[in-house]
Amino acid sequence: MQNRGNSILIDAELVAELIDELSRFGAYGDTGVWRTVYSPEWIAAQQCVAGWFRESGFAVSHDTIGNVWGELRGTTRDPAIVTGSHIDSQTPGGRYDGALGVIAGYVALRVLYEEYGSPRRTLRALSLCEEESSRFHGARMLGTRAITGQLGSDEADSLVDFNGETLAEAMRAAGLDPRRIDESARSDFDTFVELHIEQGPILEEAGCAVGIVDAITGVRHYVIEIIGRSDHAGARPMDTRLDPMAGAAEIISRTIDTATQMGRPAVTTCGHIDVQPNLAAAVPERVSMTLDARHPEPIIRTQLYARHEEVMRSVATRRGLTLNWSIPVDVPPCVSDSELVRLFRQVAEDQGIEHMTIQSGAGHDAMLMAKAARIVMIFVRSEGGRSHTPAEFTSVDDAVAGISVLAAGLHRLAY
Amino acid sequence: MQNRGNSILIDAELVAELIDELSRFGAYGDTGVWRTVYSPEWIAAQQCVAGWFRESGFAVSHDTIGNVWGELRGTTRDPAIVTGSHIDSQTPGGRYDGALGVIAGYVALRVLYEEYGSPRRTLRALSLCEEESSRFHGARMLGTRAITGQLGSDEADSLVDFNGETLAEAMRAAGLDPRRIDESARSDFDTFVELHIEQGPILEEAGCAVGIVDAITGVRHYVIEIIGRSDHAGARPMDTRLDPMAGAAEIISRTIDTATQMGRPAVTTCGHIDVQPNLAAAVPERVSMTLDARHPEPIIRTQLYARHEEVMRSVATRRGLTLNWSIPVDVPPCVSDSELVRLFRQVAEDQGIEHMTIQSGAGHDAMLMAKAARIVMIFVRSEGGRSHTPAEFTSVDDAVAGISVLAAGLHRLAY
Repeated sequence: MQNRGNSILIDAELVAELIDELSRFGAYGDTGVWRTVYSPEWIAAQQCVAGWFRESGFAVSHDTIGNVWGELRGTTRDPAIVTGSHIDSQTPGGRYDGALGVIAGYVALRVLYEEYGSPRRTLRALSLCEEESSRFHGARMLGTRAITGQLGSDEADSLVDFNGETLAEAMRAAGLDPRRIDESARSDFDTFVELHIEQGPILEEAGCAVGIVDAITGVRHYVIEIIGRSDHAGARPMDTRLDPMAGAAEIISRTIDTATQMGRPAVTTCGHIDVQPNLAAAVPERVSMTLDARHPEPIIRTQLYARHEEVMRSVATRRGLTLNWSIPVDVPPCVSDSELVRLFRQVAEDQGIEHMTIQSGAGHDAMLMAKAARIVMIFVRSEGGRSHTPAEFTSVDDAVAGISVLAAGLHRLAY
Repeated sequence: MQNRGNSILIDAELVAELIDELSRFGAYGDTGVWRTVYSPEWIAAQQCVAGWFRESGFAVSHDTIGNVWGELRGTTRDPAIVTGSHIDSQTPGGRYDGALGVIAGYVALRVLYEEYGSPRRTLRALSLCEEESSRFHGARMLGTRAITGQLGSDEADSLVDFNGETLAEAMRAAGLDPRRIDESARSDFDTFVELHIEQGPILEEAGCAVGIVDAITGVRHYVIEIIGRSDHAGARPMDTRLDPMAGAAEIISRTIDTATQMGRPAVTTCGHIDVQPNLAAAVPERVSMTLDARHPEPIIRTQLYARHEEVMRSVATRRGLTLNWSIPVDVPPCVSDSELVRLFRQVAEDQGIEHMTIQSGAGHDAMLMAKAARIVMIFVRSEGGRSHTPAEFTSVDDAVAGISVLAAGLHRLAY
């Protein structure tokens, strides 16, 4: 039996109720959620969270981009500690991605306040407005970008949703003034802790409810165009073709093999392909495709990308194909604060919760927050590793385990 | 210098004029043609061809599916000899695919009639209504299917064009009665000769203006569905993925390699691919793709398909993917009549025209005509092997060479 002296009791029934309550805003089918930023269901969800904060005695504020903050004022003027995640979802997504981190921040602060009263250092629970880019392509992480001053002054007018509405128009429709976005920036905190579902199978495989994230992976997206020559599928012999599909298939196979052979946590994915003219009986003229390649260790990441580029160049040269690529997304790895990793591992250990150190293969708000604060993330187990689908599921027990670690860590930091 | 005793002089200026005249119906850009069956430009083109026939003294008839026939009545009651090709085009296509065979049939009969008068055996020039399936998906070769009684009784109502109009509606709009399609069937001919552009590069590579086609390839289309499991492109490790894109890429690479290693005339093409959900940062759930695989020799063709199916099954099994396929197109090879091949090679030889025996990698009307008659095809050189594009080009000299062979062969058969 391990030392459970630091244990903070989390009410499982409360957690289950909050998950259920929040999932009703934008409910999609039996288990799904469809809740894009600034939509009526999003407004209702943020009002619900603000209501929780208010009822529990937190000082509530709404910033100009649409984030909701709940504060327990500390007895010192030291920089605040912030915890939270995003309230928006994929289209459709599940009940846990983002939402569980909002609930966790609220529950942790509520139990700490009830048990221990006002903290020494100010604690803030945060419900971030947007992370998923599920309404505005390229919006990715509006909430944390506004807080950390990383939102471009033109984005309110240049970001357009899938119906043609601009970010500025959508904000006004939700009662927000896009001219005041800059006022969301703040520098009065130095620590950010985000609880999130893992979205992968690693905790499940290892039999752990909780992972302490020591690094968030670096992500690069290649958009690759391979141009050959369209020919009749019957009349053009194989040996004189310039077939961009043959080139694309070889690039996909070999880059996937590269990441597989490199081993965890390297990943490479071709998720998108577009073929012209896309006819059964014609060699294509052109294939466009994406490669998403990730590694959390800066040096190995560079090697992964170099090997992918070598494959692309050599395949195109050997096959006589024209190759162009661009890199619209290139986010460097984000390393967690080592002291925070140690502290949260320790409180998990102290509570006898099965845990492990893990890397995040997905990007998260914490990456953006790292510009302004030291960060760490707590992952909770995802059943079957599923995410971005109504099928995503995390048990209440696992959620409670994660919130216990979050609350105990915040207690160590703030009291 | 070879024997040119059998030479029949073809007027190059006339051929150039006719190519130019026909290309104006449905002209698309500087060199293209967009002329789908039963369209106003198609009606005008068939009227133009009927006018040529009439002016040259041929007996003209329009059958119930929309083919135009021009006849030189023979002095015997032996079955007729027919030559021609299709008047419709790809969207867009060029000036030569189909149209050159219509022009060739007209010019050959015209010169024979002018030089030698009425033939012993009846000769017919034919402008077929449809071959390309460019308006009605699945219509493929309406003209020859109607003539040979291979058109289903339900197709007038079941074939729908890309705007939702049925074949029956389109026929009525063109002044044809779809209830009378059956009346197009006829069995009063026993020989069909089709001149067509090669659509591939083999004649150009060999330095030949003309090819005598001894077999038309067998064509099979596989429509393949590969189902895996969609996962987050970052959070799901490579070693636990069920990635249908990785499976598709391996199948494409290995089937293309199989056909390449088997050597000419084996061909395999993946021209169409459809990915769900087709997002850069998600392992796909499902990939649908086509494989078009062709070989003119029945036994090797069977081996090619067996090897492709073995690749598909082994890749799916090893990767844990669900695999389904259907075969919506499966046309057996069509072997030309060996006596006709010998005869047309001989007349090319006699005229000193550089020629070779060749297989057709594309399907043609002659395949359908083979149900009712012995067939042979004459190919003429395509610049760069291009086809199904406004860029397709055949020189007037090469067209004249092909028509010279056609006319000389018809002379040997009919006079």
